Amino acid sequence: MIVVLTGGTGGAKFVDGLRRLIPPEELTAIVNTGDDHEWWGLYVSPDVDSITYVLADILSSERGWGVRGDTFHCLQAMKDLGEPAWFSVGDRDLATHLLRTQLLSKGRTLSDATSYIAQKLGVTSRILPMSDMRVETRIDTPAGDLSFEEYFVKRWYQDPVRAIRFAGASEAEPAPGVTEAIASAQAVLIAPSNPVTSIGPILAVPGIREALQTTQAKMAAISPIIGNAAVSGPAANLMLAAGLQVSIAGIAEAYKDFLDILIADDADSASAQSLNGNHLQVHCTNILMRSSDDKARVARAALALACPEILTESATGNQ
Amino acid sequence: MIVVLTGGTGGAKFVDGLRRLIPPEELTAIVNTGDDHEWWGLYVSPDVDSITYVLADILSSERGWGVRGDTFHCLQAMKDLGEPAWFSVGDRDLATHLLRTQLLSKGRTLSDATSYIAQKLGVTSRILPMSDMRVETRIDTPAGDLSFEEYFVKRWYQDPVRAIRFAGASEAEPAPGVTEAIASAQAVLIAPSNPVTSIGPILAVPGIREALQTTQAKMAAISPIIGNAAVSGPAANLMLAAGLQVSIAGIAEAYKDFLDILIADDADSASAQSLNGNHLQVHCTNILMRSSDDKARVARAALALACPEILTESATGNQ
Repeated sequence: MIVVLTGGTGGAKFVDGLRRLIPPEELTAIVNTGDDHEWWGLYVSPDVDSITYVLADILSSERGWGVRGDTFHCLQAMKDLGEPAWFSVGDRDLATHLLRTQLLSKGRTLSDATSYIAQKLGVTSRILPMSDMRVETRIDTPAGDLSFEEYFVKRWYQDPVRAIRFAGASEAEPAPGVTEAIASAQAVLIAPSNPVTSIGPILAVPGIREALQTTQAKMAAISPIIGNAAVSGPAANLMLAAGLQVSIAGIAEAYKDFLDILIADDADSASAQSLNGNHLQVHCTNILMRSSDDKARVARAALALACPEILTESATGNQ
Repeated sequence: MIVVLTGGTGGAKFVDGLRRLIPPEELTAIVNTGDDHEWWGLYVSPDVDSITYVLADILSSERGWGVRGDTFHCLQAMKDLGEPAWFSVGDRDLATHLLRTQLLSKGRTLSDATSYIAQKLGVTSRILPMSDMRVETRIDTPAGDLSFEEYFVKRWYQDPVRAIRFAGASEAEPAPGVTEAIASAQAVLIAPSNPVTSIGPILAVPGIREALQTTQAKMAAISPIIGNAAVSGPAANLMLAAGLQVSIAGIAEAYKDFLDILIADDADSASAQSLNGNHLQVHCTNILMRSSDDKARVARAALALACPEILTESATGNQ
């Protein structure tokens, strides 16, 4: 069993690579829910949706979120009605939010709702939200205390970031199966997601970091940073605000208490040498993921280092 | 001020005619809400929507419900997720239900939500739900006690009807403005809607029938029956179950305690003669409404009989 800790966009690309390499039932994704928010009265879980859609092979790879080929007619109608329209929900995507909201309103947990929807979409990998309790990533800026989606989508991550907190994290518990999956995994992979607001909320749920520290599984992270910049999104500013260098050294620092292997870009081979040590191996390769082939190549590199046996087992029929 | 009591499909056609003849702010529609139901966790008010859309000039005249040119991608996605899909909600239409559901969940009344949405869509006529309280049309059939939409849409009105009741009606009150609008109207028009399940629920709200009996306004109904058949839909079976003849005599009977004028089809001129009496005038004309011209013609006939002065006042500029 391979476990991947992941956020949405960058993480979904990596998961897209993984699903092409290993049998889907061998994969468990533990997904950030710090970005979850209410939208038009519906419960939206952006990262869970992206991971569900990529595993169902319906993710729009052009946009990196939402359903492939989706339309936005309801969104336009909401805009015409004077309602907020800064968070783009497609018409097909809306079905997921409607169904999840109904399941939650009937008392089902987010885990239950997630697995129900995934199963209906034909997904056989396990998708676990990090917690069934509400943990909300809040970004403190001069413009106010923003939800992650307000900071990221509504305001285009232009605000200076003063601090980041995960409201509700201290009282949260890992969703059922999360710590067990980490404990029994052959390898735990950390997707090239933002370490502060995609992986950070997962690590903030009491019990998950401890599970990562104590598991026997090999633990490998793919860097979301090349040189001194994020491959995409606001990771650089958020890392600075969290007191991390914007570099592979900052990534190594974020995961230092449990990481075995850091996979960095060839561009960072000099820094990689200085980070290499007793407790951490740093490997360099081309980590940019644009095409499907790129995604499978990066996923293969991670598996080859953290769990080569699964590639041998799956060598026929899954490529 | 002209008041129209109306359901959805047939009523919307008649309202479409009216809006072409009189200044919109001179029109108040009192609308059936007995068909309202929860769908995908949203509060749907089919007749209120049809009347809102026709007055906003966005009703699909092809289908007779929903938004013109709408798509059904969310519906298909819901079907793919294994959810019920027998009630067709378009993607643009969905915005109305999402917004109404949010307004209601914030404690707004159905009247408030209706006028808020209508105003956002540019409607200047008044649209009043018959009541802000839940009155649910229930159809007793051998297949069970069905909601109106289950009977009508899901099961194609094929079930024998044993009885009709309006659950909640006895405790309901007219929505604010309903009885006042009737009391102060120049004329009250009853759209060619089903007398049992479209106009019936309105009349079942305590206080509305009394307001119709006591108003000084002329009261005219357009028959939804030609010969011994409904122009469309399940009116015939429902009238039989309610103990009414399927004929203009049955319509006259349904409204006998307040109706002044019945507008019937030319095909019914023989029956019309025998119904004509001290308390009821029956006028025959072509009442079929297929084209926009038909709708305006029927509306003009009703206004000419019930309130000719408004046609004179509006003779310039609104035709």
